[in-house]
Amino acid sequence: MIKRNFKSNDIFTKKELKKLHTSTIEILEKNGMEIQSEKARKLYQENGAKVKGKQVFISEKMIEDALKKAPVKFKLHARNPENSVVIGGDNTVLSPGYGAPFVMNFKENKRRRAVYEDYIKFTKLAGNSDFIDVVGGVLVEPTDIDDEIRHAKMFEAAVKYTDKCLMGSAMGAKKAKESIEMAAIIFDGIEFVKKHPVMLTLISTNSPLQIDNRMTDALMVHSFYNQPIVVASLSMTGTTAPTTIAGALVQQNAEILTGIVLSQLVNPGAPVIYGSASSVVDLKTGNLAIGNPETAKMFNGTAQMARYYNIPSRGGGSLTDSLAPDAQAGYESMMNLMSAIKSGFNFILHAAGLLENYMTMSYEKFLIDDEMLGIIDNYAAGIKVDDEEIAKEVILNVGSSGNFIAEKHTYNHMRDLREPVLSAKKRYFSNEKQPDTDQRANKMYEEILKNYQTPKLNKGKAAKLQEYIKKLKK
Amino acid sequence: MIKRNFKSNDIFTKKELKKLHTSTIEILEKNGMEIQSEKARKLYQENGAKVKGKQVFISEKMIEDALKKAPVKFKLHARNPENSVVIGGDNTVLSPGYGAPFVMNFKENKRRRAVYEDYIKFTKLAGNSDFIDVVGGVLVEPTDIDDEIRHAKMFEAAVKYTDKCLMGSAMGAKKAKESIEMAAIIFDGIEFVKKHPVMLTLISTNSPLQIDNRMTDALMVHSFYNQPIVVASLSMTGTTAPTTIAGALVQQNAEILTGIVLSQLVNPGAPVIYGSASSVVDLKTGNLAIGNPETAKMFNGTAQMARYYNIPSRGGGSLTDSLAPDAQAGYESMMNLMSAIKSGFNFILHAAGLLENYMTMSYEKFLIDDEMLGIIDNYAAGIKVDDEEIAKEVILNVGSSGNFIAEKHTYNHMRDLREPVLSAKKRYFSNEKQPDTDQRANKMYEEILKNYQTPKLNKGKAAKLQEYIKKLKK
Repeated sequence: MIKRNFKSNDIFTKKELKKLHTSTIEILEKNGMEIQSEKARKLYQENGAKVKGKQVFISEKMIEDALKKAPVKFKLHARNPENSVVIGGDNTVLSPGYGAPFVMNFKENKRRRAVYEDYIKFTKLAGNSDFIDVVGGVLVEPTDIDDEIRHAKMFEAAVKYTDKCLMGSAMGAKKAKESIEMAAIIFDGIEFVKKHPVMLTLISTNSPLQIDNRMTDALMVHSFYNQPIVVASLSMTGTTAPTTIAGALVQQNAEILTGIVLSQLVNPGAPVIYGSASSVVDLKTGNLAIGNPETAKMFNGTAQMARYYNIPSRGGGSLTDSLAPDAQAGYESMMNLMSAIKSGFNFILHAAGLLENYMTMSYEKFLIDDEMLGIIDNYAAGIKVDDEEIAKEVILNVGSSGNFIAEKHTYNHMRDLREPVLSAKKRYFSNEKQPDTDQRANKMYEEILKNYQTPKLNKGKAAKLQEYIKKLKK
Repeated sequence: MIKRNFKSNDIFTKKELKKLHTSTIEILEKNGMEIQSEKARKLYQENGAKVKGKQVFISEKMIEDALKKAPVKFKLHARNPENSVVIGGDNTVLSPGYGAPFVMNFKENKRRRAVYEDYIKFTKLAGNSDFIDVVGGVLVEPTDIDDEIRHAKMFEAAVKYTDKCLMGSAMGAKKAKESIEMAAIIFDGIEFVKKHPVMLTLISTNSPLQIDNRMTDALMVHSFYNQPIVVASLSMTGTTAPTTIAGALVQQNAEILTGIVLSQLVNPGAPVIYGSASSVVDLKTGNLAIGNPETAKMFNGTAQMARYYNIPSRGGGSLTDSLAPDAQAGYESMMNLMSAIKSGFNFILHAAGLLENYMTMSYEKFLIDDEMLGIIDNYAAGIKVDDEEIAKEVILNVGSSGNFIAEKHTYNHMRDLREPVLSAKKRYFSNEKQPDTDQRANKMYEEILKNYQTPKLNKGKAAKLQEYIKKLKK
């Protein structure tokens, strides 16, 4: 987690925010949203929305009511209470890359399909991180596991190899329900789960202006059980959104607000996060492109819209279009990460490991990004101003043309100053001639996996969970 | 130049700013500053400062008077008026790396001493840039040129190969005067120069709390001729400054304000910039380290102090400790560049090319950084909010589950959206299988140099300048 000790970077005036809002309301009134789930449509209708075929038309009043009920911040509980985090306010909670179907590492030197073994390894690397708070969900896509039980096996790995916060399944009502039931096994029963957020789920809209069955139905289950959801749009300017950024922000706003309203209709006060992974399309190729300034400034816009509505926000990440952890990956990932942290997001998914937009998880880049999270953590902490830090007496003592190296004050502070970085780098650096960054990262991740200390999990619970998953398989 | 379309990122409260200021005043009262130049000491003394040996004690009143006189913004004139820039306000004026004694490129694959040929090549690359405004000064250190005429030969290359804004010599009164005289040759006489800023000069303090002969004497010449100076500290926490950031900021503040006071005593209203290249020392080795979060957040602090005093600011750059244009260079350079732009600096020196802190200029990194300046330019422009950009009718026309690719609105905007990036990349990308970033950059810079169009320089002026330099050599 990163604690932000500065004001979030606003880019819109109040008037601009209002214009984006009223344009959104007009879109929702005139076009509405295509909601594929009959069950969801019915719920909107019962609560005052106009429904015409699959189109649902929510009113500004319904949005205002929902936003009043949704919490400004909430606590996400980990099975180890020390790893619980509050989402909202000045906190930026971190989660690694999400959804990549491929992995790569320095030794194999090509991308290949991700398998369950990769999922477990990345879970351990996330467990080892001093900064990453949330694991589970589609950390990478374990393509060798049956779709029917994939969510359950991912959940199992996350609770088995870490004791951090978890993510749940968004793949329809059945799998969402199963996520809840598995969480109930780990968190002392369904009553506990209903009262405490223990699992975060990423609900994606289907741009433009549509939410599919699986997503609304999973949303309704998670909200019913009081589990937090991120309602997020990944609209792409030029194909699934207007090619202008303000237009893409308005369209995603319509989609996100529609999801938020649904959550509050199901369960008033259920935690919900305003999210976005929207970015641009390279119109020469039609490819998604995320390592660019348009994406970085969309983060500013998204985070400020969420503040306008007074609910927690999600966006950003160490995002690049590069195919390897090279200079391009460094520049692009850092631009997006800095923009996200300056934007004031409360939750950053994709904070470590991704290459080639969202397609590939790199072991080496994961380690590099994780170190960078420590650097951003230090940066975001800002500068402490007090007598000890100003050190007036030390300055006067050293005087003109002196040297501070032998001062007691220097000695006292020399460990603190770089602590977060040192902590992230701990154990792994030898004194050999400096190899390339990706080679060092390769060595580091192998060392981490070799020495990883799996946190304890209650044997009864572990057995129950295995039993549960076995039954899913039939 | 980058136009910043957002509020500069403040990190200090008013109370903290006040505390940093009053601590500075106390340092200046109790220790004062060591001013090596007798001429400068005399000027301070004549205007009310207490002087004791080499220590000069300026009062808060003298600082307030000076700050009232120094301009909030000013225009820096280039010999091509289209390339003139205003320093101050929302503008961030850009200059490439400065002072590196070494160069490297991908083909030689090692660093070597910089020579005059490198100086000319980097001048052309800066001339080719769509974003870099200011050339000249110690763009790289041409170690094969006699020290006696080095400043003159650098000036000559800058005016011969570009028509952008210039930098002058800070190496004592004589060379400063010669810079002014050469500028007078190019800019239609000394009277013009006295009335128009045509040359920016970097005056460095000698931390802790000292300014050497060369610097004060050059400062006095440039200010006398109304030429803008940057008064900058490069204090290093743990050796030439306290190891705590707030302490380093207070100490550099004392140094910078002392320089600013001198400029206003010489010539009230002479343009002056509040500058810093301060950063940390790696206490394991004693090396300067600039690719770190402490440096990045010192930018925030420096820029806000300058705003507190209401004068233009300088800091930041594409700064890294990496030895090669690799992933480390990318992450670190972008962190520092993003922090600098968010901090709201009016002038960024070191915006392109540097590796290994300030030691080495890389041809490849210059090209990569230059492209990144275009990306930051796009980012800093923010998001336009108007009816055309919101594109409500387009969103309504496409509706739920449609596609924007064939919309006229998409077609109309597809060039604008990535224009700055495309412009920076113009001409150089082939369709071959994508090589590594540094290999592409290598190819690009060779192409640029081959095709570089040298801007015209009046033959009479060019001849006069050559004559002038010949005389310097005796």
